[in-house]
Amino acid sequence: MLLPLPGQPLDAVDTPALVVDYDILLDNLTRLQRAADAAGLQLRPHIKAHKTPEIAHLQLRLGAVGVTCAKLGEAEVMATAGIEDIFIANQIVGETKVRRLVALARRVPKLSVAVDSLEVARPIGAACAAAGLTLDVLIEVDTGAARCGVLPERVVPFARELAVLPGLRLVGLMAYAARSYVGDLEQRRAFCRQEAAELAALAQELRADGHDIARVSGGSTPSGPCYEPGCGLTEIRSGTYCLNDHNQVDLGTCTREQVAATVLATVISRPAPDRAILDAGTKALDQQVGKLTEGYGWLVDPPEASVVKINDEHGYLDARAGSLRVADKVRIIPPRICTCLNLYDWMVVAQDGVVRDVWRIAARGRNT
Amino acid sequence: MLLPLPGQPLDAVDTPALVVDYDILLDNLTRLQRAADAAGLQLRPHIKAHKTPEIAHLQLRLGAVGVTCAKLGEAEVMATAGIEDIFIANQIVGETKVRRLVALARRVPKLSVAVDSLEVARPIGAACAAAGLTLDVLIEVDTGAARCGVLPERVVPFARELAVLPGLRLVGLMAYAARSYVGDLEQRRAFCRQEAAELAALAQELRADGHDIARVSGGSTPSGPCYEPGCGLTEIRSGTYCLNDHNQVDLGTCTREQVAATVLATVISRPAPDRAILDAGTKALDQQVGKLTEGYGWLVDPPEASVVKINDEHGYLDARAGSLRVADKVRIIPPRICTCLNLYDWMVVAQDGVVRDVWRIAARGRNT
Repeated sequence: MLLPLPGQPLDAVDTPALVVDYDILLDNLTRLQRAADAAGLQLRPHIKAHKTPEIAHLQLRLGAVGVTCAKLGEAEVMATAGIEDIFIANQIVGETKVRRLVALARRVPKLSVAVDSLEVARPIGAACAAAGLTLDVLIEVDTGAARCGVLPERVVPFARELAVLPGLRLVGLMAYAARSYVGDLEQRRAFCRQEAAELAALAQELRADGHDIARVSGGSTPSGPCYEPGCGLTEIRSGTYCLNDHNQVDLGTCTREQVAATVLATVISRPAPDRAILDAGTKALDQQVGKLTEGYGWLVDPPEASVVKINDEHGYLDARAGSLRVADKVRIIPPRICTCLNLYDWMVVAQDGVVRDVWRIAARGRNT
Repeated sequence: MLLPLPGQPLDAVDTPALVVDYDILLDNLTRLQRAADAAGLQLRPHIKAHKTPEIAHLQLRLGAVGVTCAKLGEAEVMATAGIEDIFIANQIVGETKVRRLVALARRVPKLSVAVDSLEVARPIGAACAAAGLTLDVLIEVDTGAARCGVLPERVVPFARELAVLPGLRLVGLMAYAARSYVGDLEQRRAFCRQEAAELAALAQELRADGHDIARVSGGSTPSGPCYEPGCGLTEIRSGTYCLNDHNQVDLGTCTREQVAATVLATVISRPAPDRAILDAGTKALDQQVGKLTEGYGWLVDPPEASVVKINDEHGYLDARAGSLRVADKVRIIPPRICTCLNLYDWMVVAQDGVVRDVWRIAARGRNT
């Protein structure tokens, strides 16, 4: 397997390749960090979108308090990369995982996890206590996502049940801001006020009940820049904002020029005047269709052209790609970067059309 | 990263995991090999569905003539695994790829590739000639797939243009049997007769025009067992048949009991009586919906239950999974195995509920 070399022109990179523009990446990271600072919020970026230690370290250097992971495997990679404050915003279940969690807690200075039931919390607490550890936990609250999470009215009784378990220390609340993915900026701002107020009120109830609640954790990429000072959250966990994608453009949370990640692809066949076939299919672009705009990908140039159909190894460009010829390279904005990036082992980091670096997407494939 | 050990009960395997039942796999491989033998066809299985040298070797030992790959990276992995007859059924475009192709041709005794234009064929031929090699090529014909491929009426003139290029030897025709994915068994049989007759007639035209056409390559998983002796093809390139998936069940090409690959997942939350959340989302099951039955996955047991909604890290089971509890494990039949398997680095090979082996999905991530 051949990786591109720093200094190579981007056009010489073999395709399909995931390309991240360094300047746009840095601009995206800086912009949200400033917004979080201005709102008095800690930023704890979710690494699920990039899965890459190099980007996590950039986020920390710019001011992030730590990182958020979706699963234990991702957290293990971030710990190995030297990151000292890691939150796993998910339910960790099963004997093997609990043993791995204890091993991880031994080597990460500040590790915390979400819990939403005693069935999840009890084995974790017992294993931590047996290892002489106390693990920070946040209650996952269902503020409308209807996924995991304790309903708001169950938070206080659940916290009481948690408090008597050994090996655990209740330190906060978290919610997944699913509802921030609909509506316009004004609706997102209203959602953010409401979500933050609801979680802050629950945190106050818990404090009144004797719990030491330091963290009130919310946020998403659409909601990230929409919080106001004193909103009631203490931290946000935006993820996609580092790279952005076409869904975020559609939502109005970024411009096309703020999309840092594209798929570099090659035209491999022009079998008919209205058909150009790319070497990027579902295993390079991912098969998700756009959230608001239908399509599997959109060319950076010409900007009107899109991937209208997709097979495992082939993408079909529409007729607006008419002037493209076999061997031409194109850059495609994917609908959703989280699942697209998950198909690659490496990202090619580009700057001014030249390869700046190649970073391993080290947490990809850490499925458990 | 912890891999399961042979001898461990399957229930002890950490999740989400891709599990392949060895006996079903072997039965699937044997069944199609017998059907191909009975029809007098060579079987050249497409490895895109499994991407795993261990399975490719099983296919060869059972009688396959060689393997088919979708891209150079997959072919490089199969060559490293010692496979001596490899066909890349796709257009290879770009300077880097052509150089890699020459390197590969030097170490694979029988390598062949598809071409559908002079723009693709010319650089390959020139590079092979410069290296003192002659590479076998098959013309990709568009028999209705409307993807890559030369239209049937263009095959003879294109073959004449190919024949004068140095470094290439025209040895056959190939087509992608897209149309075999619709209809019932009778329609598939009719399609197979028609596809084979069309390709065989083109091959005859080429022979009459002075070309030595040894291979007429077609087939897919649905069409694989439907060819009759003397149909006119010389080989079929079925891929998915080794593992099968729910789409194949829907198409009637296999039964549920003939699906060898499932995703082992854990219930991580039961936040409401009608909701069970699994640790398998789009990054473990893949986000494809079923071709004929709507859903993101179907439980082996209870067989009525399905994954009705999916996020990156979470699968939502419907209410028919009512008796499941947190920490219970389930096995899920994915809609489409090719894209699902592409999310895993390893497959857990199981037999009688016990881990028999763990195989690296070595060609996954070889995107170029």
